[in-house]
Amino acid sequence: MTRIKNQNEIEDTGLSSKFQTRTQRIIKRDGSFNVRKTGIPRLESFNLYHYLINISWSRFFLLALLFYVIINLIFTLFYYAAGPEHLGIETDLGTLHAFMNSFFFSAQTLTTVGFGRVNPQNSWTNIIATLEAGVGLMVFAVATGLLYGRFSRPVTNMKFSTNAIITRWADNLTAFQFRIANAFNTEMMDAEIQIIASWLEPADDGTELRKFFNLKLEYARIVFFPTVWTVNHIINDESPMYGKTIEELNKQEAEFLILFKAYDDTFAQTVNARFSYRHDEVVYGAKFKRIIIIDESGKSQVALDHMSDYEKAEM
Amino acid sequence: MTRIKNQNEIEDTGLSSKFQTRTQRIIKRDGSFNVRKTGIPRLESFNLYHYLINISWSRFFLLALLFYVIINLIFTLFYYAAGPEHLGIETDLGTLHAFMNSFFFSAQTLTTVGFGRVNPQNSWTNIIATLEAGVGLMVFAVATGLLYGRFSRPVTNMKFSTNAIITRWADNLTAFQFRIANAFNTEMMDAEIQIIASWLEPADDGTELRKFFNLKLEYARIVFFPTVWTVNHIINDESPMYGKTIEELNKQEAEFLILFKAYDDTFAQTVNARFSYRHDEVVYGAKFKRIIIIDESGKSQVALDHMSDYEKAEM
Amino acid sequence: MTRIKNQNEIEDTGLSSKFQTRTQRIIKRDGSFNVRKTGIPRLESFNLYHYLINISWSRFFLLALLFYVIINLIFTLFYYAAGPEHLGIETDLGTLHAFMNSFFFSAQTLTTVGFGRVNPQNSWTNIIATLEAGVGLMVFAVATGLLYGRFSRPVTNMKFSTNAIITRWADNLTAFQFRIANAFNTEMMDAEIQIIASWLEPADDGTELRKFFNLKLEYARIVFFPTVWTVNHIINDESPMYGKTIEELNKQEAEFLILFKAYDDTFAQTVNARFSYRHDEVVYGAKFKRIIIIDESGKSQVALDHMSDYEKAEM
Amino acid sequence: MTRIKNQNEIEDTGLSSKFQTRTQRIIKRDGSFNVRKTGIPRLESFNLYHYLINISWSRFFLLALLFYVIINLIFTLFYYAAGPEHLGIETDLGTLHAFMNSFFFSAQTLTTVGFGRVNPQNSWTNIIATLEAGVGLMVFAVATGLLYGRFSRPVTNMKFSTNAIITRWADNLTAFQFRIANAFNTEMMDAEIQIIASWLEPADDGTELRKFFNLKLEYARIVFFPTVWTVNHIINDESPMYGKTIEELNKQEAEFLILFKAYDDTFAQTVNARFSYRHDEVVYGAKFKRIIIIDESGKSQVALDHMSDYEKAEM
Repeated sequence: MTRIKNQNEIEDTGLSSKFQTRTQRIIKRDGSFNVRKTGIPRLESFNLYHYLINISWSRFFLLALLFYVIINLIFTLFYYAAGPEHLGIETDLGTLHAFMNSFFFSAQTLTTVGFGRVNPQNSWTNIIATLEAGVGLMVFAVATGLLYGRFSRPVTNMKFSTNAIITRWADNLTAFQFRIANAFNTEMMDAEIQIIASWLEPADDGTELRKFFNLKLEYARIVFFPTVWTVNHIINDESPMYGKTIEELNKQEAEFLILFKAYDDTFAQTVNARFSYRHDEVVYGAKFKRIIIIDESGKSQVALDHMSDYEKAEM
Repeated sequence: MTRIKNQNEIEDTGLSSKFQTRTQRIIKRDGSFNVRKTGIPRLESFNLYHYLINISWSRFFLLALLFYVIINLIFTLFYYAAGPEHLGIETDLGTLHAFMNSFFFSAQTLTTVGFGRVNPQNSWTNIIATLEAGVGLMVFAVATGLLYGRFSRPVTNMKFSTNAIITRWADNLTAFQFRIANAFNTEMMDAEIQIIASWLEPADDGTELRKFFNLKLEYARIVFFPTVWTVNHIINDESPMYGKTIEELNKQEAEFLILFKAYDDTFAQTVNARFSYRHDEVVYGAKFKRIIIIDESGKSQVALDHMSDYEKAEM
Repeated sequence: MTRIKNQNEIEDTGLSSKFQTRTQRIIKRDGSFNVRKTGIPRLESFNLYHYLINISWSRFFLLALLFYVIINLIFTLFYYAAGPEHLGIETDLGTLHAFMNSFFFSAQTLTTVGFGRVNPQNSWTNIIATLEAGVGLMVFAVATGLLYGRFSRPVTNMKFSTNAIITRWADNLTAFQFRIANAFNTEMMDAEIQIIASWLEPADDGTELRKFFNLKLEYARIVFFPTVWTVNHIINDESPMYGKTIEELNKQEAEFLILFKAYDDTFAQTVNARFSYRHDEVVYGAKFKRIIIIDESGKSQVALDHMSDYEKAEM
Repeated sequence: MTRIKNQNEIEDTGLSSKFQTRTQRIIKRDGSFNVRKTGIPRLESFNLYHYLINISWSRFFLLALLFYVIINLIFTLFYYAAGPEHLGIETDLGTLHAFMNSFFFSAQTLTTVGFGRVNPQNSWTNIIATLEAGVGLMVFAVATGLLYGRFSRPVTNMKFSTNAIITRWADNLTAFQFRIANAFNTEMMDAEIQIIASWLEPADDGTELRKFFNLKLEYARIVFFPTVWTVNHIINDESPMYGKTIEELNKQEAEFLILFKAYDDTFAQTVNARFSYRHDEVVYGAKFKRIIIIDESGKSQVALDHMSDYEKAEM
């Protein structure tokens, strides 16, 4: 199980398939989609805000630093062209000295620190400084906005059971089950699960096509989600899975795509997580162990490190 | 009734149970969940944003102060290493003097105040100061963002009647009722209630298991919520409570979990509140008193200090 | 019609009733609720964020100025106690001079302007200044956050027809209609109307009680809302209004409460507006005039200044 | 296909109609509405926040610069009235010099740079500066808030197939289809399409009226939207389009309005896009080509540059 926060950071830690498969999984175990879109020019598919929100923290800070240096260099060129002596910089200590002190003055203006020892003393330098102060406020507004936007971005840390199981249900039916729990301490309300089963079926032209089917759940929504939820799809005659054997599911490279949504009380909005179980991550003939107990003081307690535990069961 | 704002601050002020109970309540009267999750490593369940949004105001300001001091100390070490004389600090007044003035200079740079009497005068101190100004803007962006995020966080102040009641309904039925009102002056729209009844039932293996049942409401949603809402669940043959006596509810340690949602006009988003009534907070054979009157000027008036008032009634 | 933005600013500009009425209207024509809640202590019903977001702009700026002055005065007392000479202020020009310059220095530090002529020169003044700079950033974060929060707050400018009408529908039915249009230039999607009819009915104990009924609409939701929407409730035998005469509606002081919701493309969220028609604002036997025309260039055009226009019609 | 971001920027790039039409399209190909609202005074329909969020970037920066200059000029007048010598400006270098340096000082105060060489030295200039620093923080809060609000505004880049098609469905039915794909790299969940068909029909009074009809979709919502979605409306006897020939659709100037909504994972909220197909953009008797393939490594791949490709098909 992996923490679903930044799609670009997480490696797929799913189990390697025991079978030689013709297709890769559609949703990786970190929740990202494993689909390649071609035919869109790089420029058209690029969105600056998406990019800056999604990149890793190290890349973000590197870009911020680079941008900080570059924008200061641009203004430094302006100050240098206007004459560094008009900033009160000694020009007889060499070009490098004048350039560097112009650079430092630029940074002091851009960030509005404004120490003042070096300061604009003629109209041109004053005009550049006036502009730079305004530009600095705008630029840092975006940078700091992005920083806080990244920091306060809704994230989830949903634990999914390592395996999904097919278990016995009532007299002569089976059920597809998995478990989900919230590893964070935040409260979640109105949790909702949607499962899309998918497998390969023959197409009209002799090739294979991946088909998608909605699986109806016993409970698709639960009001409160304080502990662990054992999600249950009863495989009755309404289910697309009815009558399918495990061999068929393997041969057809079945994959069960899961979308989890809930209202997170701290982010004060709906959050979501995605996951999937491949056919070789589904255990046939098992039963999840009970993990909610009532302790000595009468308080409900759930052992999340055992949420994947199952025992073999007769079918 | 308690103000539901910060789960960590509010003590459970609910009435102590008249009965010896085997289980604790699931939702405390302040709306927080009374469930313990074990098996997740501290690091995995920790989310910095959640933590900083949820801690008490005193703890937040203490952390902010601590962080402010520490980050200044770090930069002070850099300035001291670069030589405090390059900041214009007199070095012949002792190490403490040089260190403290470097510290003060660091704070002036980090906060971008930049008085300027003490100021960087060689390349190294200038580079550190340039970096510190940038870092300061970023750091304060997060701190001030969190401050405003905490301040503007959607909160509710829902008053629930001290007791829920079971009252007579129509000829031969009963109804489970409680009252809810908005103690704040904000307008609420599309208010929605969900009630989950829960009690202990015997499990297959001889132990007891807590079961959960959705209670269908006469009105689950109301469009406008300007005064008080008497929430009503009719105990007909479709209700999970049908046929249950008060003794059974006590013995099975029944608890009625309530989720309230509404759109708050000032926060311009959906807010929620949670509450619960334990079996010993439910009064059998009562009727809520009328509290909405029309005053002399024809204006509707509701006395919220009497919203919990009930009178005994024949069943 | 009034602009629904800040409930506290708008006066009720509704038509005065032609009848002596026993009750006031529930929703004023500016969308605010006309209900008085008693029994909650002032402190408990007060929420600082709600208050600061909802007060008028003039009151907000006055409070901001007051707070700015007060917080500076507090720090001025500290600087004065530490000795204004340690800020470089001449103490031989009198107490007022020293106090005022300490005040100005405090403002320069709080706002991080930090001119530097007056600056802290001993440990105590430096410590106070260091704290004040940090406090200033935090305080201004909240103030500026509130300012932008108020400025960017979702508002609507929905125009409602002056009157609602009861018009002929099909062979032998009538319909309750009114019109709504968006006076702003923003795009709205998924617009939704809910109408709650209410009137006085006799209660069990001889008094009168105001009852509320949901009116089912021909179309409760429309996908696109670019022009004007004539909202239509058909008074068939399922309607609570079926069989009611205009005299009954007047005698029972009927009021039709309206909640409008839509997704606003610029605020990128759902916005809402509230309105109501009292029995004496409903015209019986009328028909709204057609106001959507197609101009010479083939473009749809709607004359919103005629949206309230109706003509008498046979019933 | 155009990028739907700022309605004022995008030109309608739709195909010019092959037919002489009596009406213009309702939704332009960039998603904006082609309706003119008259009768609202300019002042009443104006909303400052909408305006500042929606104008082009160049216009925004121009306004920001203008406002920056003007507010500085206002304060400059105050400083000049108070006497520029009290800012430490040499008054014997001429009025222009004094005025300009007052202006630069104003900018340094407004932006809180506060170099300090020029600084307030008497009470009046100090009071003005104290006010200006506070005003500056407020003003820049709004400016920078707007800047980041514009930058982080939810946008979509949905590609729609150039044409919609009417294709054969099952034995003796047809279906109305078009394709939509997300050109951005963000993940989208719970995508939803609504189609409103509209065409001219004769009205009671002899003129023509544009009528609107909801088209029921085979799938109105899909849980995951990683690649391309072929939206499908089956023209059975429940469809408003049942029995309509292409000639009728042309004569009645049919237009198919499309609203797309989905949850965008990066903006962490619902986004939407609008589009429309005019009768002459609908191809009768075609079939979309297959564009999702599974590459050599087993990964799903979709060629979005071919999403509009269709081949003629027998009907």
